[in-house]
Amino acid sequence: MTDYTQIIYDVTDRVATIRFNRPDRLNAYTGTMADELRAAISEASADAGVRAIVMTGEGRGFCAGADMEVLQGIGSSGGEITRKAAEPDFSAAPGPDVTADFPGRFGYMFACPKPIIAAINGPCAGIGMVLALFADLRFAAAEARFTTAFSARGLVAEHGMAWLLPRLVGEANALDLLLTSRKFDGTEAQALGLVNKAIPGADLMAHVHAVAKSMADEVSPRSMAVMKRQVRASYHQSFAESLTAADAEMDGSFKAPDFKEGVQSFVEKRAPAFASV
Amino acid sequence: MTDYTQIIYDVTDRVATIRFNRPDRLNAYTGTMADELRAAISEASADAGVRAIVMTGEGRGFCAGADMEVLQGIGSSGGEITRKAAEPDFSAAPGPDVTADFPGRFGYMFACPKPIIAAINGPCAGIGMVLALFADLRFAAAEARFTTAFSARGLVAEHGMAWLLPRLVGEANALDLLLTSRKFDGTEAQALGLVNKAIPGADLMAHVHAVAKSMADEVSPRSMAVMKRQVRASYHQSFAESLTAADAEMDGSFKAPDFKEGVQSFVEKRAPAFASV
Amino acid sequence: MTDYTQIIYDVTDRVATIRFNRPDRLNAYTGTMADELRAAISEASADAGVRAIVMTGEGRGFCAGADMEVLQGIGSSGGEITRKAAEPDFSAAPGPDVTADFPGRFGYMFACPKPIIAAINGPCAGIGMVLALFADLRFAAAEARFTTAFSARGLVAEHGMAWLLPRLVGEANALDLLLTSRKFDGTEAQALGLVNKAIPGADLMAHVHAVAKSMADEVSPRSMAVMKRQVRASYHQSFAESLTAADAEMDGSFKAPDFKEGVQSFVEKRAPAFASV
Repeated sequence: MTDYTQIIYDVTDRVATIRFNRPDRLNAYTGTMADELRAAISEASADAGVRAIVMTGEGRGFCAGADMEVLQGIGSSGGEITRKAAEPDFSAAPGPDVTADFPGRFGYMFACPKPIIAAINGPCAGIGMVLALFADLRFAAAEARFTTAFSARGLVAEHGMAWLLPRLVGEANALDLLLTSRKFDGTEAQALGLVNKAIPGADLMAHVHAVAKSMADEVSPRSMAVMKRQVRASYHQSFAESLTAADAEMDGSFKAPDFKEGVQSFVEKRAPAFASV
Repeated sequence: MTDYTQIIYDVTDRVATIRFNRPDRLNAYTGTMADELRAAISEASADAGVRAIVMTGEGRGFCAGADMEVLQGIGSSGGEITRKAAEPDFSAAPGPDVTADFPGRFGYMFACPKPIIAAINGPCAGIGMVLALFADLRFAAAEARFTTAFSARGLVAEHGMAWLLPRLVGEANALDLLLTSRKFDGTEAQALGLVNKAIPGADLMAHVHAVAKSMADEVSPRSMAVMKRQVRASYHQSFAESLTAADAEMDGSFKAPDFKEGVQSFVEKRAPAFASV
Repeated sequence: MTDYTQIIYDVTDRVATIRFNRPDRLNAYTGTMADELRAAISEASADAGVRAIVMTGEGRGFCAGADMEVLQGIGSSGGEITRKAAEPDFSAAPGPDVTADFPGRFGYMFACPKPIIAAINGPCAGIGMVLALFADLRFAAAEARFTTAFSARGLVAEHGMAWLLPRLVGEANALDLLLTSRKFDGTEAQALGLVNKAIPGADLMAHVHAVAKSMADEVSPRSMAVMKRQVRASYHQSFAESLTAADAEMDGSFKAPDFKEGVQSFVEKRAPAFASV
């Protein structure tokens, strides 16, 4: 396992959990943290013993945005927030390769063949919200505090958020959150469609782990990999293009062992034993 | 009227109701059922005495997915689920022709000039959910059970669902339902935006019939045909293209008899008598 | 200040409020009103003392649709509803110019660099709903009555509504509202995602003014201008195109005075003093 300094990485029940680990700074984002997150997701993807990935924060926060000292440095130097780390290569994963469609610092999360779940345990601001948007599912502590924060700092919708947010929560909510930088909690984040579900903070990690474990135990890793990438590819496809790709994937799935196992386990009323990807 | 073997077709109050009729199998999908559904929608479209179409299931189920015997056959043979039936031709209907934009097995429902309402009375799984997605409006029994089911069988998002579902319920809910194959009920389907409204099962068909009857009695069939296709065409248009088409349609509507009748009936506070399409 | 005859225009707390002023007709839409709305938004945009724009109706109504006398005139003459007024030029505003992407009668609202908030105080029908859709945020009196109305008059989805509405409320709700022309209230408008929030009518204007004032006082006008246009540009961009533009805007924001002020005011725990645009 890689040595990490600003995240904690562990695997339980075929679920990899990545914890941002700068709790005294509410896990404020740094270049090192970004590099280690990428390395950890790459590690989880390559590990046949991992079927789902959880991303959360150590301590009271999820990720309170860019570290203010870094931001102040930019104010005087105009420099880069993040070093460039090696890009993971997921092109051999089942399903369409969406790497070219989603370039930039966090697009690799969409290209990752395994589901990524954000467990937003506390303050989630600025680039912390960007990180959450690149996850596949989001669960939040009901009392977690959110803000886009960009307009309050004289900044803009960074890292693709102007494109992602309206597709997730609709234009009206996207403009509300971006223009006002107002604070809101996890309960409202659910109402806005920003998170799949808000849960009392004390129960959050147990709930998220149960969802991730059910993904690990009950569904086909190959199916998840294909469908995650079908959905993301669909944004740049006409219906006809998406359908043509789906028909090819359907034929491919009929020939893969997981289909036979999926039908047999259902008929035999037993848990399926799907292959790893 | 065509002789149907796996559906029931009848017309009341200018509303055609199509019932999947394999109640002992919870209306599991077969090639014959698909062919008959297409023929019935074609028949309803051609009948000037029909202004709205309801699609539902006989007995306890809506459509519990592909028939398991058919799926097991594919497991050994790799064969086709559905025979090819003649494609209905709706190209003469008012509004843009969306047939080319929505190819595949169920695209004809989007091209149909009359509104199609799914009344999801019970279990709705796999290809049953695909059928529901191609309707224009969806109402569900609050207690109806839904699941995408694909990932639990080692399959993928079939028949364009990867493209349709995020546009209907947003990316977060789409990935939730596709990746996990979890079961959910009609009440949650409403909260997710998957159905327009959930209704206690005992009241479902009366509610849906009332909605369909109001479409038949209170609004212009020509307007519905144009607008249904405007919305579906918009997915493949820039705003400017959609607007240009809308301006042309607006001019066309000013010259059609329904506009005069719409304004006159409003001024005279009486029910309108619109022309059939 | 321009002399207006069918609207009222005033500025308080750096918030411009535009009131449709034909209260005896529930502010039914006329060509003059459309011209004056455009002139007023142009005036507010050019005024460095204005940071947010509110659009509402005088009296009991917001805008009850096209004036019925005008509609009856079209029935006999086929004529135009609106005269052509000079188009405001917002191309020098910060952020991508979306004027070319959003042509037509109301596209200038998307191109306007300042946020436009619709305060829907009462009946909102037909072209009144179109006006509301071109605002950035929408708040409604809980008891306000809405209807698209087009299908009840034999008309179609006009002025780009077929493109805008599904992107705002999802396809299922868009088809519901367009096909049925059913009436619904502000509370349901919130549930459908059509308005950001419904508020008891007595409290509506105070709430909206507070939101607009917080935009004027707490966030960067430059950030709002850029982000408003980033979101609208995103509809016609791939993710990669949106990201490339966002990266350039991010670099630009680092060099603008508002970024330094945004960080400093945050560190010093004081209200920011951002520059006007």
